[in-house]
Amino acid sequence: MKVRVGFLGPLGTYTHQAAHEYFQDSVIYNERKTIAETLESLETLDYAVVPRENSIFGSVIETFDGLKVLKRGSIQDEVVLKIQHCLVVKKGARLSDIDCVISHEQALGQCQKFLAERLPSATTTGMISTAAAAQKVSKSQTLNVAAICSEICVTTFENLEILVRGIQDQNSNYTRFFVLGRNPDINPSFTHALLRVTPQRGCTDSDTTFDLTELLKTIDLSVIHIDRRPAPVSEPFLDTYFLEVVSSSKKASEWPEQLSQSISRVRGKGYLVEIIGRW
Amino acid sequence: MKVRVGFLGPLGTYTHQAAHEYFQDSVIYNERKTIAETLESLETLDYAVVPRENSIFGSVIETFDGLKVLKRGSIQDEVVLKIQHCLVVKKGARLSDIDCVISHEQALGQCQKFLAERLPSATTTGMISTAAAAQKVSKSQTLNVAAICSEICVTTFENLEILVRGIQDQNSNYTRFFVLGRNPDINPSFTHALLRVTPQRGCTDSDTTFDLTELLKTIDLSVIHIDRRPAPVSEPFLDTYFLEVVSSSKKASEWPEQLSQSISRVRGKGYLVEIIGRW
Repeated sequence: MKVRVGFLGPLGTYTHQAAHEYFQDSVIYNERKTIAETLESLETLDYAVVPRENSIFGSVIETFDGLKVLKRGSIQDEVVLKIQHCLVVKKGARLSDIDCVISHEQALGQCQKFLAERLPSATTTGMISTAAAAQKVSKSQTLNVAAICSEICVTTFENLEILVRGIQDQNSNYTRFFVLGRNPDINPSFTHALLRVTPQRGCTDSDTTFDLTELLKTIDLSVIHIDRRPAPVSEPFLDTYFLEVVSSSKKASEWPEQLSQSISRVRGKGYLVEIIGRW
Repeated sequence: MKVRVGFLGPLGTYTHQAAHEYFQDSVIYNERKTIAETLESLETLDYAVVPRENSIFGSVIETFDGLKVLKRGSIQDEVVLKIQHCLVVKKGARLSDIDCVISHEQALGQCQKFLAERLPSATTTGMISTAAAAQKVSKSQTLNVAAICSEICVTTFENLEILVRGIQDQNSNYTRFFVLGRNPDINPSFTHALLRVTPQRGCTDSDTTFDLTELLKTIDLSVIHIDRRPAPVSEPFLDTYFLEVVSSSKKASEWPEQLSQSISRVRGKGYLVEIIGRW
């Protein structure tokens, strides 16, 4: 049976593109409407791909809220995608044919310079998503409408081609994605791990206030990213922390043991802690 | 001249209520449309009040994005408000008069149990904000419409009264607000400070990867909250961190000196660091 991969849809999104860069054409893609549903798809599918953070907009809150209550599977890899907006047209259309450009408002905003210089007289219209814009162009009977969307749209929808690639004003727009597996294939020489840590009242020295400095001293590993979200409990202002730790040991062979000792130390201080990813 | 306070409007919001709990009736309130505009109002107003985090929904991203580029003023205090939804009606209306309840969808959703038990046959209608719902009831010619909104709405809009207070299903819904001053009155015995820290490439040992554990060891103060947002530079995945530190010294008199030494140590390692609040 073919491997099945859930992703945040619809078809043609940048998450679809990230999933495709990772799994190529060897799998069956299953779109999901929300990040929560994508993560829950691991109950039945083999893999799931969700956005983790964008270099301009920051962490994706829905993903971390989903990871708070993840029931099945774990993170097994990460994909970084450069967000390259493309000007996509009906096959055969030239730049001089275009008098209308459609896309999500955010994408239109990110390509203002290109539009002003190369298509100064074209009108722009906002759509619900970049993928919806590509689909509309694909179904159009005329050559005068172009979409701003991801590269993968030209293989997802029919009769489309890329006229200009990388038309965004700002070149440093990247998104990181998590690849989760239902029964993950952990790389035995993994160097990164994601820890989910929730302090319990009473597990810190002062008995009332959580101290992150003390927690990191107890973990005693290199922490390269941190995110916090309200813990899934009714106690106000109790947070769950997501800590990405990396192997700092010169001897790579010692790292799994270091990680395991770190978890024991943190549990010993009364924190709830789980490893929810290794890659 | 009377003191002027900017807040995230419109009138009747929970931020308005938090500002009122702090400054009472002694000041002039100036509503602003966005959090960015509220923070920028410190160029001309004396104080500004913005939401920092909610115990259910987490940190308020717009506030931290505004603090990244704060040009004028600093945080001088914090207010914690219990979010108490009230059933507000035209003066004289009784529960049996109500056949329609209006509010922001989120507030309606948070009071489902109350509505099902006490107003089972009333219809509900979503509005753009809880304050807009209160205003609509205030202008209504009939007694059959109630709003779910903050307590302060009954003093902000005319002809209203609170029929039932605290009608939310979940009782532990709190929001913390920052109070910023254009020329802040720093309490000389302040115990909290908010540090804004941006790593520079090359300021960490490994030269490529930021290590939060090393940063916190260098700071060597108790860190009780942390937030991260993309740094206001074009380099992808470089973050600005907001660290709330507290006095851990038994001798309170040593704390300002401890804080100042901590800042020097962090600067010595090449980080950009500013104290943007003391309270």
